Parts: sequence; structure tokens; C-alpha cells
Amino acid sequence: MNAFDFLTKDRIRAPEEGITMMLDKGMGPNMVEDFLEISGPYVDLAKLGWGTSAIHERELIKYKIDTYLSNDIIPYPGGTLFELAYIRDKFDEFLTEADELGFKAIEISDGTVDITPEERNRIIGEVKDVGFMALTEVGKKDPKKDHHFTAIDRVNLVTLDLEAGADKVIIEGREGGKDLGIYNNKGDVKEEDVQVLMDYLDVKKLIWEAPQKNQQAYLILKFGSNVNLGNISPDEITSLETMRRGLRGDTLGKVDL
Amino acid sequence: MNAFDFLTKDRIRAPEEGITMMLDKGMGPNMVEDFLEISGPYVDLAKLGWGTSAIHERELIKYKIDTYLSNDIIPYPGGTLFELAYIRDKFDEFLTEADELGFKAIEISDGTVDITPEERNRIIGEVKDVGFMALTEVGKKDPKKDHHFTAIDRVNLVTLDLEAGADKVIIEGREGGKDLGIYNNKGDVKEEDVQVLMDYLDVKKLIWEAPQKNQQAYLILKFGSNVNLGNISPDEITSLETMRRGLRGDTLGKVDL
Amino acid sequence: MNAFDFLTKDRIRAPEEGITMMLDKGMGPNMVEDFLEISGPYVDLAKLGWGTSAIHERELIKYKIDTYLSNDIIPYPGGTLFELAYIRDKFDEFLTEADELGFKAIEISDGTVDITPEERNRIIGEVKDVGFMALTEVGKKDPKKDHHFTAIDRVNLVTLDLEAGADKVIIEGREGGKDLGIYNNKGDVKEEDVQVLMDYLDVKKLIWEAPQKNQQAYLILKFGSNVNLGNISPDEITSLETMRRGLRGDTLGKVDL
Repeated sequence: MNAFDFLTKDRIRAPEEGITMMLDKGMGPNMVEDFLEISGPYVDLAKLGWGTSAIHERELIKYKIDTYLSNDIIPYPGGTLFELAYIRDKFDEFLTEADELGFKAIEISDGTVDITPEERNRIIGEVKDVGFMALTEVGKKDPKKDHHFTAIDRVNLVTLDLEAGADKVIIEGREGGKDLGIYNNKGDVKEEDVQVLMDYLDVKKLIWEAPQKNQQAYLILKFGSNVNLGNISPDEITSLETMRRGLRGDTLGKVDL
Repeated sequence: MNAFDFLTKDRIRAPEEGITMMLDKGMGPNMVEDFLEISGPYVDLAKLGWGTSAIHERELIKYKIDTYLSNDIIPYPGGTLFELAYIRDKFDEFLTEADELGFKAIEISDGTVDITPEERNRIIGEVKDVGFMALTEVGKKDPKKDHHFTAIDRVNLVTLDLEAGADKVIIEGREGGKDLGIYNNKGDVKEEDVQVLMDYLDVKKLIWEAPQKNQQAYLILKFGSNVNLGNISPDEITSLETMRRGLRGDTLGKVDL
Repeated sequence: MNAFDFLTKDRIRAPEEGITMMLDKGMGPNMVEDFLEISGPYVDLAKLGWGTSAIHERELIKYKIDTYLSNDIIPYPGGTLFELAYIRDKFDEFLTEADELGFKAIEISDGTVDITPEERNRIIGEVKDVGFMALTEVGKKDPKKDHHFTAIDRVNLVTLDLEAGADKVIIEGREGGKDLGIYNNKGDVKEEDVQVLMDYLDVKKLIWEAPQKNQQAYLILKFGSNVNLGNISPDEITSLETMRRGLRGDTLGKVDL
């Protein structure tokens, strides 16, 4: 039983909704244990960011993966590691290794490298065939390149990925949440762009990378408590869950549960 | 005995002064233990920020409260949780639960909801009567609403709270320290506003929320080592204590102990 | 063996190059243990920032120093503590205490106090004679004072320190990386200033304080994977190592190993 339980309601979620994706950029085992005890129930996906898993011991990565899985959290390696394997022509080895380590999802992105739509379509299919959850990401990591996309371009890319079988599509925000995707160079939300995505897409299929509190609050107020959010720092998981439930000033009295 | 003790002096404090209030926004038990070992002696009050305690297990919250208390740190739940209880008409249950969990102070704020001065006065009295330390907070969490207050308005609000029996009054700064209270939208101190508060109030009765280093340094240089400061992140407690003692560049040679 | 090892190469380093200096601003023992397990191999120097070691128990500081040393990391106290000892005329006691605690390097700086070139020269020699590694730092902690230095002034100061026997010279960036040294008030790199330092100095002799990711990425792309970088937060060590190895979008495909 939670403290002050007479003041709160559980958050009722459909299986596809209310997802919180956490960005693990290299937590040690004590921190993982601590994090799970305090925030474990509020996380669904754990991304071992970009190529971080490739500079740590296999045994440590396996231990972290097992720990996440036994807490009902699905771990997956960052998209940049997939991109590196792809351009090195080692995609099959990458899938095999991810499976051996215990990862249950794969992120398919082209944040840094270029991949043709046909290739991307084929890869999504292969990832699904092998039995992984397929997460794709739309957006470029270099702001100059990302600025070439209009909101409608993003709608089209998301649509292609979903048609190819992606389980969810992540809207790129990086760790910083600035000057990319739906954020301007101050980190404020570009509201018209969000509206375009909302008009043409099923928001339940999207995971918005939203590392900053103002971004999380905006998206919760716009789409409700159960909007899917990602790139949340481990020490912000508690804060995010309170915002989803109207337990922080930013959303108090403004969300329904 | 501390390392390099021939270079330092203890910080001599009157009971009412030199208070450091730490913002715990969801630390796990390993982190709390670690934090107390390294920074425990430098913290007086631990706020379990906003509604965070309401999404954690009672047993975990009790354990954290006990741990703080046995290290001479007074824990209390964030003001937003009080506000939620107040608007839900569950203030008495809130006080009972806070007492059963072991909290020793209550924060009375109206950062998000509206409370009449008469109600606020009555609540402060009730909190004191039940035996809690009464901390009140002056300021609104939404910058647009907070901007309606002049410095003199804040003086008047603080004065009312003190007359009603508040032990300390907290000047709102939130977790970010921007565009609220005594801070402009860059996080710089609005010096004229601080001067007005200083001219009309007993600074010993105030706790300034000062999450950013430049804010802490400004207030230490203005009011001395033993200014009361709050909303300090757990991993900034050591840094703050070094600034209070002239052990960091910002205050070296500029503070008396 | 690391996870995904078929995608990565070890970083080959000459003894003088590729140094990562980590800023410990008061980690507790659990965090140190955790940090070493996940990031220990990627750190060479651990600075107990400014005067932080002087507010912690000798036994705790000794324990942390021993732990760092047994992981092949050289610990040293922050320059501000040296400066304080110097102006208090307690430099010899400072060296003795540093040695007794187990520190293996000393930072000689004048970020806050003034020291004549002759004095600085003499101190560097004394530090070396006693058997410490001598790290010096160039730059002032107060932006107004630091702005008096041209890039050529910095070249001259570095040159004097190296002639006096300094093992490495640190280019000041503080914890924030703004408005100081090679950074403008937004934290962007002043590229012309870096070019001047590069033209006149042996870059292998420098350690660039670079707390922000964009700064780390710039310096890696400019000088290669094995540029010496400092003031890296413990939880950014993994990220930095991935950038050095082209495992993050910022450097993928742009660094040679």
C-alpha cells in the first residue's frame, strides 16, 4: 500500500498506452537495484542508450538485462548501435548478440546513417520475424539535418514504419530535448508540429522522447496521463509518474485518471 | 576528524540559522544511505518533494523517514501534497497519515490552489497544535501567476504567516530556480526584490529556495554563511557546505566563520 | 569480454594521451563502488573537487583514495584547496596531509588567489621534488577576471608551467563550462582560441576541462579520440568513452581508433 493512498488513484492503462521509456546511459548495479526499488513499477522500457552497452562487460550487461526483465521492464540497445552494425554490414551478428544477451526489443533508426526506405522496411520485418519487439525512431541527431523534415515528412515516415510492422515509433528528442523533432532550440514544444502529428497519426503508436519536465508536462496536458514518453532519466521517473497522476503543480487538477 | 582540518573552521550556528533543506525527489535506499554517510551532517530538513511520497510504498517511506530522523534530519512531505489534500477536503486524514508515517513538519503552501488568508491562518494553527513544525511557502508555481506578486506583497504574506505561528517561511523557487520569486527567467537573482525582503523581514525566519549554484553563492555573500537555503539537490549538499565555509572559489576569502 | 565486441575496437593510447579526468564533487562509498564497476577502466584521474575533501572524515577520504588507487585511478585534491593553504601560509602542512591521505597528484592553480610567476615556479618544483605528479591549471574562476586573458596569454602561462616541470596543464572550464577559458557564455567553444593554443602548444600536454557534451564532441572531433579531457561528471564517463570510440551519433564514423 502506498503512503497517502487516500489521495491518489491507480493509473489505469490499456496495454498499448501510458508507456514510460527510461534512458539508462550507464547505471551501475547498485543504482539499478535502487532505481528498481523506488521507480521500477513506473517503467516499461529501458534503453541502454546509443552504444553504451558495447563498452561494458557481457556479464554486467546480462545481469542488468536479467534484472530489468525480472521487474517486467523490456530492455533494448540504443539505435546508434544498430546503425553502426548496419553500416559495418554486421546486422545479423548484431541481432544474434542482442538475443544472446537477452534483449527483447530492437530499435531501428537512421539518426546518423542513411538507410533506404526499402532496406528499413526489410529490417523491420526481419526484427519482427526473429521475435523481437520492433521500435523505430524518426528523426536525425544532427539538428541541421533534422531541420529538413517538415511535420508532414515525419507523419509519412511514421506511417511507413507502422505499415512495415513497427510496434511503436519513437519521435527523436535525444538526451537533451533541444533543436530537434518537436522541440525548438530552447527546448520548447513546437505546438503546430505536434498538432500535425496528432491530426494524421494514432498517438497511441508513438513514443515521444521528452527529457525535459516542461516537455513532459505539455504532452501530458495535451494527450492525457497515458501518453507514451521516452528518454526519461532514471532520477526523473518518480517525478514523471507524479505528473501523470496530477501530484505535481504542473498537472494538479488538470489530468483525469 | 576531517581531512585537511587545519584549513577549516566548524560552522557555528544558532539553532534558527544556517539551515539547509534538501529536496529528495525520489531517492532509493542505497542512495539515501550513501548520501547520509557523505552529506548527512550538513542537512537539517529533507523535503520529499511535491506528491512523490504518495506513489511509493508506505514501508519504504517509513524507512526513509526513520533513517532521516536517526540522522537528525527533519523530513516533511511537499506542499503540493498538502494542497491536494486541502482541495479534496481531506486535510485531517492528511495530518493523521503524515503523523503515522513519522513526518515531523508540514509545509503549508498555495503554489497551485487558492486558499483564503483566514483558512491559511487556521491551518497553520492546527498544524502547530497537533505538534508539527509549521513551514509555509510564499509564491505560485506558475510564473504567470507568480509575477502578480510584488516584493512588498511577499513581505506581507510572510508577515501574516509568521503572525499565525509559522516556524519558517519558504520563498518559492521550485526545482529549477527560474522566473519565479526572487529569480528572473535566466535564474539570476533580482537584487532589488531581495533587498525589499531584507529591509522588512527578519531574514532568520526565511528559507530561500536556491537550487542553482549562482543563487546559493549570491545569498551566502549577501547574508553570510548561515543563510537558510532550500531545494538543494542531494548531490549538491557537499558543494553548498563548501561554499558556506569559503572552500569554493565563489566564496573563498569572502565569508566569515 | 564486452558486449557487442565485434562492433568495437579498443582505444590504443600512448601513456600521455587519452586521459579522462573525473570530477568527484562528493560521491558516497556506494556510488564510488558502482561507478568503478561500470566506468572505472575509463578514468585516469579523479579530482576531489575544490575544497570538498576538507568537509569529510579523514577515514572516508582515505577509503575513497585507496579505492581509486586500487583501480589505477590517480586521485588529487582540487586546486582551490591548494590556494587556500597557500594564502593561509600552510602549503607545507597541505603537502604533508595530502601525502598522508594518499593523494598522488597536486593541482597548482590561481583561479581565485594571486600568485607570482616566481612563486608558482618554485611551488611546481617543490611538488615534483616531494614525488607528486604536478598538475597546474590556467584560468580564473571569476569570468570577469578570466576575460582579461587572451589566447596568447594562456599559451604563455602554459609554457611557463611546463618549463617549471608541470606534468600536465589544465585549461580551466569549471563545473559549468560557461563564460571561461575556451567557452563563451552559452558554453560553445571559441574555436579561434582553441586554434591559437593548438598552434603554439603540444596538445598532449593539456587537459581541457569540458563538462558539457557539445564541448567533449568538439574537442574529440578536433584532436581525435585521445584528447585529454577533464571535469567529467561521474555519470557522463560512459557517454564520453562512447564518443571517443564513435559509438554515439556525435562522433559515429568520424573518429579513427
